[in-house]
Amino acid sequence: MTYTRIDVSLAKGAYPVFCGSGLLARGDIWKPFVGTGQVAVISNNRVLSLHGDGMTQQVKAKTVILPDGEEHKNFKTLEIALDELAAMEMRRDGTVIALGGGVIGDTAGFAAASYMRGVRLLHMPTTLLAQVDAAIGGKTGVNRPHGKNMVGAFYQPVAVVCDTSTLATLPSREYVAGLAEIVKYALLGDAPFFVWLEDNVVALLAQEPTAVRHVVETSVRAKAVIVAADEHEIGDLRVLLNLGHTFAHGIENVAGYGAWLHGEAVAVGMVAAARLSEKMCGFVAADTARIIALLRRLQLPYAFPNIDTDTLLCAMRADKKHAANKLHFVVMEAVGRARTIEIDDETPVRQTIEEMR
Amino acid sequence: MTYTRIDVSLAKGAYPVFCGSGLLARGDIWKPFVGTGQVAVISNNRVLSLHGDGMTQQVKAKTVILPDGEEHKNFKTLEIALDELAAMEMRRDGTVIALGGGVIGDTAGFAAASYMRGVRLLHMPTTLLAQVDAAIGGKTGVNRPHGKNMVGAFYQPVAVVCDTSTLATLPSREYVAGLAEIVKYALLGDAPFFVWLEDNVVALLAQEPTAVRHVVETSVRAKAVIVAADEHEIGDLRVLLNLGHTFAHGIENVAGYGAWLHGEAVAVGMVAAARLSEKMCGFVAADTARIIALLRRLQLPYAFPNIDTDTLLCAMRADKKHAANKLHFVVMEAVGRARTIEIDDETPVRQTIEEMR
Ligand SMILES: NC(=O)c1ccc[n+]([C@@H]2O[C@H](COP(=O)([O-])OP(=O)(O)OC[C@H]3O[C@@H](n4cnc5c(N)ncnc54)[C@H](O)[C@@H]3O)[C@@H](O)[C@H]2O)c1
Ligand SMILES: NC(=O)c1ccc[n+]([C@@H]2O[C@H](COP(=O)([O-])OP(=O)(O)OC[C@H]3O[C@@H](n4cnc5c(N)ncnc54)[C@H](O)[C@@H]3O)[C@@H](O)[C@H]2O)c1
Repeated sequence: MTYTRIDVSLAKGAYPVFCGSGLLARGDIWKPFVGTGQVAVISNNRVLSLHGDGMTQQVKAKTVILPDGEEHKNFKTLEIALDELAAMEMRRDGTVIALGGGVIGDTAGFAAASYMRGVRLLHMPTTLLAQVDAAIGGKTGVNRPHGKNMVGAFYQPVAVVCDTSTLATLPSREYVAGLAEIVKYALLGDAPFFVWLEDNVVALLAQEPTAVRHVVETSVRAKAVIVAADEHEIGDLRVLLNLGHTFAHGIENVAGYGAWLHGEAVAVGMVAAARLSEKMCGFVAADTARIIALLRRLQLPYAFPNIDTDTLLCAMRADKKHAANKLHFVVMEAVGRARTIEIDDETPVRQTIEEMR
Repeated sequence: MTYTRIDVSLAKGAYPVFCGSGLLARGDIWKPFVGTGQVAVISNNRVLSLHGDGMTQQVKAKTVILPDGEEHKNFKTLEIALDELAAMEMRRDGTVIALGGGVIGDTAGFAAASYMRGVRLLHMPTTLLAQVDAAIGGKTGVNRPHGKNMVGAFYQPVAVVCDTSTLATLPSREYVAGLAEIVKYALLGDAPFFVWLEDNVVALLAQEPTAVRHVVETSVRAKAVIVAADEHEIGDLRVLLNLGHTFAHGIENVAGYGAWLHGEAVAVGMVAAARLSEKMCGFVAADTARIIALLRRLQLPYAFPNIDTDTLLCAMRADKKHAANKLHFVVMEAVGRARTIEIDDETPVRQTIEEMR
């Protein structure tokens, strides 16, 4: 059984991301990263029953079960996790293993970041989205009534274990939504990978193991490079990961969280970003057509739902985390070349939305 | 009006601690550290009414008022602070100014650390304890049912403003309790400062401005050196700051938080550490007598309350944050020279407690 090790290099030192099939049961690979103190595996019932056995046999650990679902990614669930760590009397030398999708990763990650001001954290992502995105880069956090991921920490794990065999049990809608984020890496920085995706749609939809490993590894590498260059999202680089996201958050906000999967909204958002890029920086219309064709073949949506334009624009404006009063977008000059722009005049954004219905 | 700037040097860069009288009104000094976005002053009614006016005139800010008291240093108060920041639509370019004692500093500091995964933080400590200890070094956090400061973040401010003139309004019991932490810096690393304290008890109790500034600056310098060498309490160095604290936490636990001020418990704890040091590493009994004499003249307690020895030992054992199953103590080889030891056999600790009643 082979696996790949990809390092995320940061100022304070690097940490490895292991990618391969069957890695959860390969304690020989990841146990060296577990500390000397107590260990807690934070997960949920669904993931534990599907993938917990092989993993929990590798290490003496207490299992902490959190409720499943985005609606539980909040302070209440965080407090459950923290109190379980306290009840087992974990010390500073303890280790938290986050086993699950992005919701578990973000919540358990924030618990690990803040319990006694920080214990060791290992991510073991079990959804495609979490393997290619959420578990890489150190963002942790929970939602607040005022907004998604409103409270959290930048907190890097000591290692990430992407066991691609766990993806076999994902509902296909979840799997496909994860593919959208993979298309995003191709669009923002890797034109040859975009071509590879065009050539391998069938293998990806069939979840052929070598194809799955290739996209996971390529995505992890892409994110690792960006995170290494801009760990705390201070420059413009990490912001590129938001390609399609301003539109996506607008859709999610208006439709209500849960109606759309995040990856589905990102798919539509990327088409919108392409159309906006046509207007703003000479992106070629034929490439927009290629993006749409790829998304369609991947069974992802590529048009706006029937939402009033002003409602959507308003929801998009509410998303600007970074600075005052202007809409920020990631646009593409070509497939594989992205940059950020600030928009004062919303006309082209409005046109984009109306064209896409 | 003169002031002193002491830098805390960390891997990521240094931040300044400004010490002097009247600095809250000196926006010229600290406004360069406020960011371009929105500003929130987090404080409580008592501090605001005493010291808010001069400060809040310097900068356009929203005031966030938290309830006063250690019993409110919890998630509920943290959530109030976070929701106020969200309600004012603070972005990543915002700034939190924590104006108050250690409770405000720790709570507002954790809010600043976790709101959108971190906004700028300025500490403006207004108690002696906060100026010489809590505001320096980046520890933030709140209490949980399972323990004090159980959840939080290491999060460094961009600057600290110690306005020594604010201390004039402190209840004298609070002021005196802060002096205990100052004695601690002398004991753990600065024998000449211990002599200076012996020579200046009267000036300190009278809150003579030059004496107060001298002890604040000396303490800030001492803490800055230790924090710079061991930012995340990974080595043994930062642990030295816990001189007297294992005993102190035992007393606080048994007596119930609030009955003793922390500094008062630390005073007794330092005497206990001295007596234990006599047994463990040749600390001279005459120096224990000097410590007791200094604490007595400073109106601090120096003997254990009437607590059953086993109850106290049990509470002390509950405090070991750092590793499994052993009591850790900071002991002194001489005044100004401290180190950590691990104790397997509790006999000398038990003797120390019983001698001191
Ligand atoms: N931290 C980051 O950088 C980052 C990046 C992107 C997204 N996120 C966050 O990630 C979250 C979404 O993550 P997600 O898409 O993984 O959702 P999720 O964690 O809710 O997982 C989706 C569902 O699949 C289940 N599941 C997980 N693994 C499974 C498996 N192997 N087989 C069958 N079912 C499985 C989960 O229990 C859940 O019911 C959002 O909260 C988002 O904010 C974070
Ligand atoms: N972060 C750290 O490194 C660190 C270090 C030591 C202590 N602490 C924490 O600090 C807290 C104790 O801090 P504290 O002793 O400042 O207590 P505190 O913050 O509760 O202040 C004591 C009282 O004095 C009031 N007050 C504040 N400034 C005043 C002024 N100038 N005049 C009159 N009244 C004033 C406060 O409102 C409060 O009622 C504890 O929670 C402790 O855990 C943190």
